[in-house]
Amino acid sequence: MKKRLELTAYKNGILSGDRVILSQAITLVESTLESDQDLATELVQTLMVHSGNSIRIGITGVPGVGKSTFIEAFGKMLLDQGKKVAVLAIDPSSQLTKGSILGDKTRMENLASDKRAFIRPSPSGTTLGGVSGKTREAMLLCEAAGFDVILVETVGVGQSETAVKNMVDFFLLLMLAGAGDELQGIKKGIMEMADALVIHKADGDNFEPAKKAKVTYQNALHLFPVSQKNWIPKVLLASSTTGLGLEKVAELVIQYETQMKENGFWESNRAAQRLNWLEDQIQFLLGLAFLKNPEVKQVLESEKQNIQSGKLNPGTLAKSLISLFHSNHKS
Amino acid sequence: MKKRLELTAYKNGILSGDRVILSQAITLVESTLESDQDLATELVQTLMVHSGNSIRIGITGVPGVGKSTFIEAFGKMLLDQGKKVAVLAIDPSSQLTKGSILGDKTRMENLASDKRAFIRPSPSGTTLGGVSGKTREAMLLCEAAGFDVILVETVGVGQSETAVKNMVDFFLLLMLAGAGDELQGIKKGIMEMADALVIHKADGDNFEPAKKAKVTYQNALHLFPVSQKNWIPKVLLASSTTGLGLEKVAELVIQYETQMKENGFWESNRAAQRLNWLEDQIQFLLGLAFLKNPEVKQVLESEKQNIQSGKLNPGTLAKSLISLFHSNHKS
Repeated sequence: MKKRLELTAYKNGILSGDRVILSQAITLVESTLESDQDLATELVQTLMVHSGNSIRIGITGVPGVGKSTFIEAFGKMLLDQGKKVAVLAIDPSSQLTKGSILGDKTRMENLASDKRAFIRPSPSGTTLGGVSGKTREAMLLCEAAGFDVILVETVGVGQSETAVKNMVDFFLLLMLAGAGDELQGIKKGIMEMADALVIHKADGDNFEPAKKAKVTYQNALHLFPVSQKNWIPKVLLASSTTGLGLEKVAELVIQYETQMKENGFWESNRAAQRLNWLEDQIQFLLGLAFLKNPEVKQVLESEKQNIQSGKLNPGTLAKSLISLFHSNHKS
Repeated sequence: MKKRLELTAYKNGILSGDRVILSQAITLVESTLESDQDLATELVQTLMVHSGNSIRIGITGVPGVGKSTFIEAFGKMLLDQGKKVAVLAIDPSSQLTKGSILGDKTRMENLASDKRAFIRPSPSGTTLGGVSGKTREAMLLCEAAGFDVILVETVGVGQSETAVKNMVDFFLLLMLAGAGDELQGIKKGIMEMADALVIHKADGDNFEPAKKAKVTYQNALHLFPVSQKNWIPKVLLASSTTGLGLEKVAELVIQYETQMKENGFWESNRAAQRLNWLEDQIQFLLGLAFLKNPEVKQVLESEKQNIQSGKLNPGTLAKSLISLFHSNHKS
C-alpha cells in the first residue's frame, strides 16, 4: 500500500526541508491516479509563493560526453560554496533510453549521499507534456524546500532539449574536443539555444585539443545572430577529474543572472515559460480526458484497423471522435 | 473573393492530374476556415482509395547543405526516368524561417517549369500538428493526382525531422564534407533516423574530402544498433552540379523499397504513421476547439497575468479551464 499524506503534512515537510517528504511529494506529482493529481496540483499551488528563488540550469550533451560526472563534480563544488543543489532529469523519449536512468543515478551516488543535495531520476511519464509538466512541478517543490540551484539533466534525444530550455534560466551544452566531433550531435539549433558551451574532459592528452576546440566554437558562436537578450554564449573548458573550470562555470552563471536581471530578460523569460507550461498542461489534460472517454475509446478501437490500412482518413475520424467526445462528456 | 469548387470538381480534377485544381485543393486543405476544413476532410476521404502508391522520400540537412539544388537535380533525373515528381515542404518552426521558403521556391524554378513536376512550398501553419497534418493531406492529394515520387523537404530546425520521418517511407540526410563538420548539426538522433546519408557537393576540390567523409560516416553508422527493419543506412556521394551519384540514390531507394516490402516493414511503417497522424489530428482539433471556446478565452485572458507572475499554478488553471470547456461546449 502506498502511503499518502495530507496536504498540510506535505507542505510543512517540504518547507522545513525534509528530503523524505520532498521525495514522497514528487512521487505524488508523478502519480497518474486522478486523486493524487488533484492533491499534487493543490500542493503546487500552495507552494507557488515559496518557489522561484533558485537558479535553474539545464545541462545537455550527447551520450558519452560525461553529463553525470559533470553534474556530480559541478554539484559537489556548488555544495562546497554553501549552495543547496537539486538534480532532476527529464526524458521525454522514455521508451528507448529508460535503462540509462538507473545507471546515472548510481554514478551520482557521491553527490546523492550529501544531505545538501537532492537527486531525482526521470519520471517514467507517457507524453512530453506530461513529463515536462511533472519535472516543472518537481522543480517548484525543490525550490520550496530551499534548494538554491536546480540542475535539470536531459536524458534521451530529440525533443528533450527544447523541453528543458523551456523550463530553465541557463542552458549549458557539454561537448568533447577531438576525434569524432562530427558525431557529437552538435546541431546548430541546439548550439543557438545554449548560453554556454563547456568542453568537457579537458584534462591529460585531451587538454590541448580542448583548447583548440574552444577557439573554434568561440569563433563559430560569434557568427550566430545576437539574441534578444543580448548575450553571446561563452565557451569554457572543464574537467570533472581535475576540477578545472568548474568554478568558472558557476561564475559565468552568476554573471548571466546579474545581466539578465538587469535587462529584464530573467523575469520575462520565466513569465513566458509559465505560459508555455500552461499550454503544455492544457494539451496534456485535454488528451487525457479524451482518451479516458469510454465511447471515444470504443470507436477508436473499432476504427483502428481502417486507419492503419489507409481506408479511413485520420482527419475524418479525428473530427467525428471529437464531436462524440463533446456530446457525451459528463459535466 | 476566393473561389471554392464543389467536391466532385476537386475530385475529378485531381484524378485527371489537373495541376491547377490540385493546387487549389491544397489551398483548401491549408485553409483555416471551418467550412473549408470540412470540405477538405471529405475530399481527402474520397481520395484515400486512390492514394498510397508513391514512394515518399524525406530530405533533410542543415541550411547551406544544398537541399534545394539537390531536390532540383534529383527531381530532374527522376523526371528523365519517366517518374512524376511532387515536392512538398514542411516547416513547423515557421515563425523564424519563413523567409527561406520563397527563396527555395525561386531556386527550384527549373523543376517547377516541368509539367511532370509539382512544387508546393510550406504551409504557413500555426502548430506542428496542424502543419504536418496539412502536409500529409497534400501528399495524399498529390498521390491521387498520379505523382510517383513525393519529396518532402524539411525547412527549419528542431522538430521538423521527426515530423517528416513520421510521414515518409525513406529518410535521406544530406551532409557536407570538410571543414566545419562539427557545426553541421549532425545529431546522432537524426543520423539514426536516416536511411541514407548523402555527402552532397562531391565535386571539384571537394571530391576527395567527400570520399574520406563517406568512409568515416560509413564506419560510424556500423556502430549504431541495427534497427528492427534490418537496414544499415548507406552513405553515398552526390553532386547536383555534375549529376554524380543521383542515379545511385534512386537505385538505393528502390532497393530499400523492395527489401522493406519483402520483410513487411513498408506496410507496418505506413500503418503506424497513419495512427500517428490520427493522434496529431486529435491533439490539433482538440486544441483548436478549446481555444475557440468563448468562456475559456475569457478566463484565459483574465488569468494570464497571474500565470506570468507565478502566482497561479499552470496546472491549477489548466484543470479549471478544462472543466469549464466541458461544461459549456455546445454539442
